[in-house]
Amino acid sequence: MAKSKTKRMGILTAGGDCPGLNAAIRGVAKAARGEYGIEVVGIYDGFQGLIENRWRMLDWDDLSGILTIGGTMLRTSRTKPHKYELPDGETIDMTAQSYENYKSLGLDCLVILGGGGTQKNALKLVEAGCNVITLPKTIDNDIAGTDVCFGYDTAVTIGTEAVDRLHSTADSHKRIMVLELMGNKSGWLALGAGVAGGADAILIPEIPFEIDSVAASIGERDRRGKRFSIVAVAEGAEPAGGFGDDDEYEGAGETHHVATRVGRWLEGQTGLEARVTILGYVQRGGSPTAADRLLATKLGTAAADLLAKGRYNVMVGSRGESWQAVPLEEVAGERRTVPPDHDWIRAARRIGTSFGDE
Amino acid sequence: MAKSKTKRMGILTAGGDCPGLNAAIRGVAKAARGEYGIEVVGIYDGFQGLIENRWRMLDWDDLSGILTIGGTMLRTSRTKPHKYELPDGETIDMTAQSYENYKSLGLDCLVILGGGGTQKNALKLVEAGCNVITLPKTIDNDIAGTDVCFGYDTAVTIGTEAVDRLHSTADSHKRIMVLELMGNKSGWLALGAGVAGGADAILIPEIPFEIDSVAASIGERDRRGKRFSIVAVAEGAEPAGGFGDDDEYEGAGETHHVATRVGRWLEGQTGLEARVTILGYVQRGGSPTAADRLLATKLGTAAADLLAKGRYNVMVGSRGESWQAVPLEEVAGERRTVPPDHDWIRAARRIGTSFGDE
Amino acid sequence: MAKSKTKRMGILTAGGDCPGLNAAIRGVAKAARGEYGIEVVGIYDGFQGLIENRWRMLDWDDLSGILTIGGTMLRTSRTKPHKYELPDGETIDMTAQSYENYKSLGLDCLVILGGGGTQKNALKLVEAGCNVITLPKTIDNDIAGTDVCFGYDTAVTIGTEAVDRLHSTADSHKRIMVLELMGNKSGWLALGAGVAGGADAILIPEIPFEIDSVAASIGERDRRGKRFSIVAVAEGAEPAGGFGDDDEYEGAGETHHVATRVGRWLEGQTGLEARVTILGYVQRGGSPTAADRLLATKLGTAAADLLAKGRYNVMVGSRGESWQAVPLEEVAGERRTVPPDHDWIRAARRIGTSFGDE
Amino acid sequence: MAKSKTKRMGILTAGGDCPGLNAAIRGVAKAARGEYGIEVVGIYDGFQGLIENRWRMLDWDDLSGILTIGGTMLRTSRTKPHKYELPDGETIDMTAQSYENYKSLGLDCLVILGGGGTQKNALKLVEAGCNVITLPKTIDNDIAGTDVCFGYDTAVTIGTEAVDRLHSTADSHKRIMVLELMGNKSGWLALGAGVAGGADAILIPEIPFEIDSVAASIGERDRRGKRFSIVAVAEGAEPAGGFGDDDEYEGAGETHHVATRVGRWLEGQTGLEARVTILGYVQRGGSPTAADRLLATKLGTAAADLLAKGRYNVMVGSRGESWQAVPLEEVAGERRTVPPDHDWIRAARRIGTSFGDE
Repeated sequence: MAKSKTKRMGILTAGGDCPGLNAAIRGVAKAARGEYGIEVVGIYDGFQGLIENRWRMLDWDDLSGILTIGGTMLRTSRTKPHKYELPDGETIDMTAQSYENYKSLGLDCLVILGGGGTQKNALKLVEAGCNVITLPKTIDNDIAGTDVCFGYDTAVTIGTEAVDRLHSTADSHKRIMVLELMGNKSGWLALGAGVAGGADAILIPEIPFEIDSVAASIGERDRRGKRFSIVAVAEGAEPAGGFGDDDEYEGAGETHHVATRVGRWLEGQTGLEARVTILGYVQRGGSPTAADRLLATKLGTAAADLLAKGRYNVMVGSRGESWQAVPLEEVAGERRTVPPDHDWIRAARRIGTSFGDE
Repeated sequence: MAKSKTKRMGILTAGGDCPGLNAAIRGVAKAARGEYGIEVVGIYDGFQGLIENRWRMLDWDDLSGILTIGGTMLRTSRTKPHKYELPDGETIDMTAQSYENYKSLGLDCLVILGGGGTQKNALKLVEAGCNVITLPKTIDNDIAGTDVCFGYDTAVTIGTEAVDRLHSTADSHKRIMVLELMGNKSGWLALGAGVAGGADAILIPEIPFEIDSVAASIGERDRRGKRFSIVAVAEGAEPAGGFGDDDEYEGAGETHHVATRVGRWLEGQTGLEARVTILGYVQRGGSPTAADRLLATKLGTAAADLLAKGRYNVMVGSRGESWQAVPLEEVAGERRTVPPDHDWIRAARRIGTSFGDE
Repeated sequence: MAKSKTKRMGILTAGGDCPGLNAAIRGVAKAARGEYGIEVVGIYDGFQGLIENRWRMLDWDDLSGILTIGGTMLRTSRTKPHKYELPDGETIDMTAQSYENYKSLGLDCLVILGGGGTQKNALKLVEAGCNVITLPKTIDNDIAGTDVCFGYDTAVTIGTEAVDRLHSTADSHKRIMVLELMGNKSGWLALGAGVAGGADAILIPEIPFEIDSVAASIGERDRRGKRFSIVAVAEGAEPAGGFGDDDEYEGAGETHHVATRVGRWLEGQTGLEARVTILGYVQRGGSPTAADRLLATKLGTAAADLLAKGRYNVMVGSRGESWQAVPLEEVAGERRTVPPDHDWIRAARRIGTSFGDE
Repeated sequence: MAKSKTKRMGILTAGGDCPGLNAAIRGVAKAARGEYGIEVVGIYDGFQGLIENRWRMLDWDDLSGILTIGGTMLRTSRTKPHKYELPDGETIDMTAQSYENYKSLGLDCLVILGGGGTQKNALKLVEAGCNVITLPKTIDNDIAGTDVCFGYDTAVTIGTEAVDRLHSTADSHKRIMVLELMGNKSGWLALGAGVAGGADAILIPEIPFEIDSVAASIGERDRRGKRFSIVAVAEGAEPAGGFGDDDEYEGAGETHHVATRVGRWLEGQTGLEARVTILGYVQRGGSPTAADRLLATKLGTAAADLLAKGRYNVMVGSRGESWQAVPLEEVAGERRTVPPDHDWIRAARRIGTSFGDE
């Protein structure tokens, strides 16, 4: 009679890395092995490793000491199963091959840790025949079906520390400090760091801004005797009317940074000196905050629980203090943007923060 | 015509201090003044200052630069209106006097930032005739009517950092490291720091523990070749059967620390060396985390909004990404303990953490 | 009889701000007032405030709670006494006016906290008749006459944390991470953060580099199976042969950043992906490290001691565990660059770090 | 011909662990292997592993990613070669055995990382025939022959952060906060953290204190309107006249903590409330600061250089920006205490800090 077979799961991390991935891997794999007796295959380099068959069995020692480490011990890549890049630069569909490898590894389920794009790719693997459970990781915090994504709290913490540092130097001189934060097409990161750091203006993609309005609020501060202003800009933010005659910046490289353009404009309109900081990749690195470790551990161990119960093809989202299993179809292709009436925005407006739309 | 009178509010902080109080004061007062044109009276030293009439008007400059600062600019005390201590040590009821002073200051409402006990005291002032709005602050995280209290995330972060540090030193030697965390009668802080730091055993008041069970789990680790174990203990935790014949510790001072006793017991039962750390007051201090600043700002500005609308005698609690006004009667006297099936506990059990009740 | 007159000193901060200025102000002023009974006049906005007569007496309360705060409570400016800028953009020599104001304030001595350029300006004031004592502050660490400048340890700490963060993200992907650090024309900051963070290549002005050599060392790592390389670049670093045909970057803005150019070149030569981070003004901000506070307190209180003894026209430099008074003539106009055989460079070379000159 | 033989070194860490040990191991071993072609044998658990023959060859991968990690990858123990503890508790001299194992491993030299006691043990191995080079590691900073020991800057940083946190909570209430810092019999750690954190009184073993004097300085602050005082106490500090009639504390456990006793005394004499924090083992853990990594890398790579040159039986000490090789005889048995006229002490006195001897 049966049921004697030991279950076996694969686990991979895909897309950009972020703090908390190792904490989540640890949560899934320790629970799978220790609590449910499931074998764990670690697949390297995201979907690329699945296609190219790069993996090894994870044992207990592999999972020790990784909770606090940034990045991902399984490494990651931006490879997609349906758009695998050949050496000549052409792409071919390797979805079927991915399924083949999944089968030949004897997997009962594949646990995939990734961002919004990865959720879509995961669904394609489901359609190809794989059992899949996903976890929401991204510093952008823009995945549907979850209150919050792991990686976000750490990135907000790093961004807030940067705003704090800029405050002290801005106060000593008389300056506008413009800080560009990541976040892809959503404003969660700039909003979180901006409100937590007490930025005077916050510019995010969800609220198209007028540079005149930002300049006016800074000018108003200047008249009230405030010596400095801090502007937090999401990399995806855009002025309602574009950057107008700002033609000279239509070039390559950092000139495309919205913060650089915002800085120039504000200098022109206020007559004050502006300094621009592009925080860049430091926002993705380092040890996860306590909150991100708690979140990653909660969701990771829940994934193992679902796996043991055979509840597949869902993303494990956070819901208040608990979690929920959301069908992948409801997550894939959706993006969770900042609601314009979000309570952080309302709070910030009440204390005089400009969003450039006043 | 009428309604020409400017509203005036008082604000005070009571009970133990915690990170985020200044962020909340800033949120309430900046929104009250800037958005709603309400005058703000800062009352010093908690209820003691209300009784003794120590206050001053807060203007815009007072609120600048305080977002990142720990403690409370209004200072605090443990004085209760109904138990005011006289120089001779006797206590008298100053509730009526408190109301008198509230009236003579011309206040329309008193905003009170405090923990569980303060909510009760606030309700007494309501019964005496004051309008009151409260905010939930405490590193203990044990106030009813809110998902989370500000101060908690910062304290968990400090506790987690301590666990991280102990890990490296425990790993180098061969040791049991016992860390005592605050939390009063609830285990939120030890649970949060324990799970986030990857403690091997977590002992909290909500789960009565058997020292034999803890010792067994540590012995099991030792047999599996793990050189060390970390035990996170809440100051309020207690063994199910008491500390038994542990008579020699029925003395004064730190010998009452549960961590000290747990350490001795574990040494006795496992034959391993144990080292005890009582983290103490560093858990209450320093700059609030980004998450605590966001929470304090959200709740503080919401309090100003309620005040402007004349919605009194409520506590402003956090509810998911938003907030809610909870009648003070539903909050006062209630305590929010850790549910034994909380998802952090379930997650921790799945990865092999002992709670001493296995 | 006589000598009954109370001494009076002025204090100002000039040039770019850096962590530790407030700690030094506190050291000078608390010692001057408390230990030697000297009155302290705080002059705002550097030399600009001296010229424009913006100052106020500093009392004990002004000096409380500033030890840990970044920036400078006296604010700063880049104004030079001999090149004061008029509204029409022209500059005039206000050295004589500075001396006038110094006299009319009744000062016995002016304590000036500044970097290399400020030491020169201070000497001009001496020549105009002022008594002056200076302190060496700069994150660039390039002032002659001192082992180390306050601000430097904090900036190295921030830079090192950035390298640490980049490590985790570089390891997860397969990438060259290029980090640009400040330092003006010297490489102290990039060297310190590079060695402390374990960068694989460090490029500083004192060692002209060949991009081929850097690329070769990265290629060598790639061949040895290392997935990533971290390159720390000082903002003042330059390739021995210039950037050659890199014409398209001869434009405005960030394209001038040496890190951006280094990144492009390395991509071209290694075929690996490169990501560039310009850390910017966050390197100047925030609370000073313990080491910077100790240094600023040691030098600041020593300045008060010299002042009490009437030992003027010197800079207080650090010398081992103690300090020394160096005549301003020996400091002004000198710049302390990194010796190419500095022990950090020799150490880094021994463990395989490339300086681009191999 | 000859001299074709590859050199081989052993490396071990002994005594209490501290931050920077892994950075130093990395420095020694990477330079030894990469620059000088020396084979590296990692010996586990300090002298115990040398005696019990627990070791393995260290290759390049072992040395990757350890720079930032606290503790020691080679683990440590307090075992001494001449006092090896048998299971029955008796001790025997295993110095000869240690030399035997050194020979049978084919070592040309043993690199030993340790504190003051370890330097003595290292000299005994020299006398038994081993070639030895040592490095000075300890958070106590009390080793002769070096300006500073690695581990110290990190411990001061942790201690300073604790003082900062206590400041905010002390300021909110009205309290004396007593913080006990490690340091064994020297006061370096309490002095560094005390001055950097702005403690109001600092008590160290090198300056016998009178509790009356400390109480007087706190009372003076109280009269000047200061609401709180911070007292930093070294674990080895002692009142000049003993603790007098403080008989009730002659018990076991934490009651022996000098901070606890100081707190009680101060409460008694000032009538103010005191709170005591024993920071404990968190002072030894976590990632080393930038300064400690620079120091450990400088000294570690210098040790490899000496080894390659056959310059044995010295400790590599820090001397200003460079280093020096000090004969082990001049180091062993010596202890570097805080000179009572150290410039940090003089600086602190000038700004009003009490050392309890005024």
